[in-house]
Amino acid sequence: MQSLIQRIKNEGQNLGNGILKVDSFVNHQVDPQLMDEAGREFARHFKNIGATKILTAEISGIAPAVFTGLHMNLPVVYARKRKPITMPDQVLLTLAPSHTKGRTVELIVSPEYLAGGENVLIIDDFLASGATIMGLVRLAEAAGANLVGIGALIEKTFEPGRAILAPLGVPIVSLAAVKSMEGDKISFA
Amino acid sequence: MQSLIQRIKNEGQNLGNGILKVDSFVNHQVDPQLMDEAGREFARHFKNIGATKILTAEISGIAPAVFTGLHMNLPVVYARKRKPITMPDQVLLTLAPSHTKGRTVELIVSPEYLAGGENVLIIDDFLASGATIMGLVRLAEAAGANLVGIGALIEKTFEPGRAILAPLGVPIVSLAAVKSMEGDKISFA
Repeated sequence: MQSLIQRIKNEGQNLGNGILKVDSFVNHQVDPQLMDEAGREFARHFKNIGATKILTAEISGIAPAVFTGLHMNLPVVYARKRKPITMPDQVLLTLAPSHTKGRTVELIVSPEYLAGGENVLIIDDFLASGATIMGLVRLAEAAGANLVGIGALIEKTFEPGRAILAPLGVPIVSLAAVKSMEGDKISFA
Repeated sequence: MQSLIQRIKNEGQNLGNGILKVDSFVNHQVDPQLMDEAGREFARHFKNIGATKILTAEISGIAPAVFTGLHMNLPVVYARKRKPITMPDQVLLTLAPSHTKGRTVELIVSPEYLAGGENVLIIDDFLASGATIMGLVRLAEAAGANLVGIGALIEKTFEPGRAILAPLGVPIVSLAAVKSMEGDKISFA
């Protein structure tokens, strides 16, 4: 998606250690027009996969996921990282290591909103190590749902995420592919 | 907003202690069509207040805020509850007691994205005790920004939020007003 790539070129910051700061339009400040365009683009890519639900992880996955849901007319479930008091005692829970946080986070979904037989499209902000998305895949499997697709705004192709997810046999779409982040540069695939 | 009120009537659950569970369309599963309609409604109410930025708090404020941002063509900043590594050392931080969490949470905004002279519209999911929204007000003040409006999807009119915010002298809009939650009932204003 050219507008997303251009935005990363203009405003993205390479903080070193493979960390790409896009806080001015994705991760802290959000550009709703850009997210709406991304949602439309995901909807175009995934229109024929038969998805019945979109699954993402709080916090940064929410914006791209809800706009994809808007354009696909699908509900969005976001996995929580802490169990709120409104959630039943029996939940689906998995652990995912977070590179950028330097610790393991919980991903929690209520079985009320992720059930057997659903066709799940996972949408997230980044595809890098693949750890968060694999956590969401495990939650979908634990619910007895079918995975039908994976979409990420930004892929770091120099990390192993795509290779780890490829055996799942579903379409994997990223809207901007960063090939390398050497020195203070950001190079696109 | 009649569709929101109807949805609360159909799917909202009174968990006791004033806790309203709307996890099937706001707080865990999100209905993007409903949030889009809410965003359009906020945009209609706030079209003449001169807002330049929308401010919300992660996590549940993000969906209504980004759709309001879409329809007002404004960027959205969501206050973080933990400081991510991409944020500079010098941040704006305030503490807000959370009734539903039973603890105090931090609300953190980077001064990169909330600056003096901006006209801030606060959007959140609930207006109840007013504690989270007052925290966002303090962040806007600390940034030197002007507060120009406050919007919430659901107001609990039996809690003191509106009375606490009223002295700020800005328009306060809620799209569904819950008057009481006695027993297992949910009554609307």
